[in-house]
Amino acid sequence: MDKNPFRRDNYLMSNHTYKKIELVGSSTKSIEDAVQNAVAQAAATEKNLRWLEVVETRAHLEEGKVAHWQVTVKIGATIGA
Amino acid sequence: MDKNPFRRDNYLMSNHTYKKIELVGSSTKSIEDAVQNAVAQAAATEKNLRWLEVVETRAHLEEGKVAHWQVTVKIGATIGA
Amino acid sequence: MDKNPFRRDNYLMSNHTYKKIELVGSSTKSIEDAVQNAVAQAAATEKNLRWLEVVETRAHLEEGKVAHWQVTVKIGATIGA
Amino acid sequence: MDKNPFRRDNYLMSNHTYKKIELVGSSTKSIEDAVQNAVAQAAATEKNLRWLEVVETRAHLEEGKVAHWQVTVKIGATIGA
Amino acid sequence: MDKNPFRRDNYLMSNHTYKKIELVGSSTKSIEDAVQNAVAQAAATEKNLRWLEVVETRAHLEEGKVAHWQVTVKIGATIGA
Amino acid sequence: MDKNPFRRDNYLMSNHTYKKIELVGSSTKSIEDAVQNAVAQAAATEKNLRWLEVVETRAHLEEGKVAHWQVTVKIGATIGA
Amino acid sequence: MDKNPFRRDNYLMSNHTYKKIELVGSSTKSIEDAVQNAVAQAAATEKNLRWLEVVETRAHLEEGKVAHWQVTVKIGATIGA
Amino acid sequence: MDKNPFRRDNYLMSNHTYKKIELVGSSTKSIEDAVQNAVAQAAATEKNLRWLEVVETRAHLEEGKVAHWQVTVKIGATIGA
Amino acid sequence: MDKNPFRRDNYLMSNHTYKKIELVGSSTKSIEDAVQNAVAQAAATEKNLRWLEVVETRAHLEEGKVAHWQVTVKIGATIGA
Amino acid sequence: MDKNPFRRDNYLMSNHTYKKIELVGSSTKSIEDAVQNAVAQAAATEKNLRWLEVVETRAHLEEGKVAHWQVTVKIGATIGA
Amino acid sequence: MDKNPFRRDNYLMSNHTYKKIELVGSSTKSIEDAVQNAVAQAAATEKNLRWLEVVETRAHLEEGKVAHWQVTVKIGATIGA
Amino acid sequence: MDKNPFRRDNYLMSNHTYKKIELVGSSTKSIEDAVQNAVAQAAATEKNLRWLEVVETRAHLEEGKVAHWQVTVKIGATIGA
Repeated sequence: MDKNPFRRDNYLMSNHTYKKIELVGSSTKSIEDAVQNAVAQAAATEKNLRWLEVVETRAHLEEGKVAHWQVTVKIGATIGA
Repeated sequence: MDKNPFRRDNYLMSNHTYKKIELVGSSTKSIEDAVQNAVAQAAATEKNLRWLEVVETRAHLEEGKVAHWQVTVKIGATIGA
Repeated sequence: MDKNPFRRDNYLMSNHTYKKIELVGSSTKSIEDAVQNAVAQAAATEKNLRWLEVVETRAHLEEGKVAHWQVTVKIGATIGA
Repeated sequence: MDKNPFRRDNYLMSNHTYKKIELVGSSTKSIEDAVQNAVAQAAATEKNLRWLEVVETRAHLEEGKVAHWQVTVKIGATIGA
Repeated sequence: MDKNPFRRDNYLMSNHTYKKIELVGSSTKSIEDAVQNAVAQAAATEKNLRWLEVVETRAHLEEGKVAHWQVTVKIGATIGA
Repeated sequence: MDKNPFRRDNYLMSNHTYKKIELVGSSTKSIEDAVQNAVAQAAATEKNLRWLEVVETRAHLEEGKVAHWQVTVKIGATIGA
Repeated sequence: MDKNPFRRDNYLMSNHTYKKIELVGSSTKSIEDAVQNAVAQAAATEKNLRWLEVVETRAHLEEGKVAHWQVTVKIGATIGA
Repeated sequence: MDKNPFRRDNYLMSNHTYKKIELVGSSTKSIEDAVQNAVAQAAATEKNLRWLEVVETRAHLEEGKVAHWQVTVKIGATIGA
Repeated sequence: MDKNPFRRDNYLMSNHTYKKIELVGSSTKSIEDAVQNAVAQAAATEKNLRWLEVVETRAHLEEGKVAHWQVTVKIGATIGA
Repeated sequence: MDKNPFRRDNYLMSNHTYKKIELVGSSTKSIEDAVQNAVAQAAATEKNLRWLEVVETRAHLEEGKVAHWQVTVKIGATIGA
Repeated sequence: MDKNPFRRDNYLMSNHTYKKIELVGSSTKSIEDAVQNAVAQAAATEKNLRWLEVVETRAHLEEGKVAHWQVTVKIGATIGA
Repeated sequence: MDKNPFRRDNYLMSNHTYKKIELVGSSTKSIEDAVQNAVAQAAATEKNLRWLEVVETRAHLEEGKVAHWQVTVKIGATIGA
């Protein structure tokens, strides 16, 4: 398939297995920031994070405003690499 | 459960009932801003807004660009409090 | 975005918020008529109805035939206009 | 249940419209009790409640146990009767 | 519809069980007619049909037009009555 | 796979086929009791019932209370055994 | 499988590939008419239309009535035939 | 539509009704084989099987391997033909 | 937002991340008890359990009765606290 | 786009048909920017883009951070206008 | 993000847009072969095919057996590359 | 039903709890092989794997062909046994 020897670590190689973990990140700033917080937390204990899928977006409200965003993501990480 | 007397108004207390209302907010700026506009509108007539769930994100297009975002949310508010 | 003063009532303007209400209309005649009955009922108390989405179609059966149709719709109406 | 032998106003008659409202009831005891609490709250302001559909079941946890159940229901009520 | 003024066997009584069968009816005329054809077929072998839910609407196309509608329904019927 | 000869009748053996039937049970008492009523009814005509999946939970309301629960289940039964 | 030589053009033959295109048709008359309008439009540029699946039914409301129906369909057409 | 008289038994004719039955087939070999086993079982009691839809794919695991596949299918069969 | 210093440990604070784990609990008694068993098992290895969502309810049948309930839940727990 | 200042018959007119195309846009900046990139690409070959629906939000991760957002949208465009 | 200059053509680069097309492939042999047939057909007119998602698996039955598999896939292809 | 004392370890016993983990396996050969690879990886660190559910089937394409299959599964394993 790919003849380029430099792409050995491509996470789409056929002999890889990935696990998916589900996290909820939060942020007072934005949806993107809540996701980044979840990823940062995952990166503290898992290496080889590859992709994520946003599963659900919620927010906590206070005094008639969004106080912080709560975004649920599934993060895919290579295992057995 | 929680012995702390200061958390009486915690919206997760067991004797509360919530209603959920569904709104569509819009904004030319961002998804977050469209949500905030929906919440602000809800806050004008409902008190005790607690949380929201984003249900659907759409946009109206003009001249090949997003003209404004339209975000459907379900907002939870305490009733009978 | 649209500077045209004639489009003031366009329900897709960016500074609008909509609420969605869920109704079940019924009719012995057709699915469309059941929907129209739900809309007519909504129009009796709400103004500025804009669109609807059919959520579910059911029917009540009697003597081996459809006796009447029961159609659940979500109706969007402008608020704060 | 229905003491009226003629039951002309049976909620499945073809000329009725129903609205559906979404509530979250809670209870420390059981899922059924959380639902009953939501129905009781609805009955305080709405008459002619007819049926409900359980939409989601969640629970709040404290000290490694379910502290209370939170059940989201959609309740159907006759309007225009 | 129901000529029996006493209606003791109302299909919503608490001691009833229902089965649900899934059929696909078809018609060259309309969606409603396709549903009625499925119900008529069910009524030929089952008695006590009570309600139906439309599950899916498809159509077979020929020469750039709908040749006939194919509507999948779930039909509920009392058993053990 | 399983070398234990005593587990021959395990309902997960590879040479089995199951059918799934969909029933709605009801009860004035609880969700569990409504399910048990559906299972009892199925057991009257089907043998070899193996498992069930709860598909939907509804309730019929009267006088502002749950009058009875209506629970839809899919029941799996061995065939060709 | 099918020994009948006259059914060569059956659209369910094993060596066919189909593409699915998604359209929204509209009509002031009925759901079926909105679907037919979408099919007619597809037929203007695509040949070999075979089947459709109704994906979503919406309506635009004006003056408290359905002004026109908007039905989203997926249409399957033979390619490579 | 189809002028060919030999296609009388085409299962897409407009005056047909189909029933759908739900089965779970299993196989130690493959997903396709599990489906074929479900179809073979259905064919033992039903004639005029026309199509199937795969609903769910599961597997039973033993000693860290797939011991057999369990595939749920809905099978459509002509009735009243 | 919340000025009350005593609510520092509120699990909805903006700087928290949660993980969600999926468990299946079982019980011969009730749906609620099956959930409690799953929570108890989670509490043995995880601290800071906060909430759960019921994902699926199944039951194992024996002799025409529910032998035990099997309830799948997603449990949310604070991490990085 | 539309030079007609009266536009009473805006894009929701009953005699319009729309097609929906599905695209994935990406951006290192934000979810909104990824959507705008997909719309810009669509505008290069399609005219009369009208609305979009966000279908899925994913992200590619590198070195424990979101490297870029990948947002799937369905874009509606007038055809036959 | 990726400093490796050799991975320029990685299909996950941030400045790419993809379109998704929906096809149904068929085969008498296997689910995988039906997918490959759909991909081969797509490759005849589109270049830069990148990934696919299986959307639905059906089969046409004849004489109590699967005659051929029909698998619906969504195929992603780079555009504007 | 089963009086056989040798089935003590049946994974459906009422006093068991299971966890579900989500993995993506890949293979150049087949869907089944991709699943087996995911299971083998899970078996390297978890014991008592019991069943799996296929959640999603995707494929990576190269040069107009499926290069490898990527199958997401949820695997259930006994805990606390």
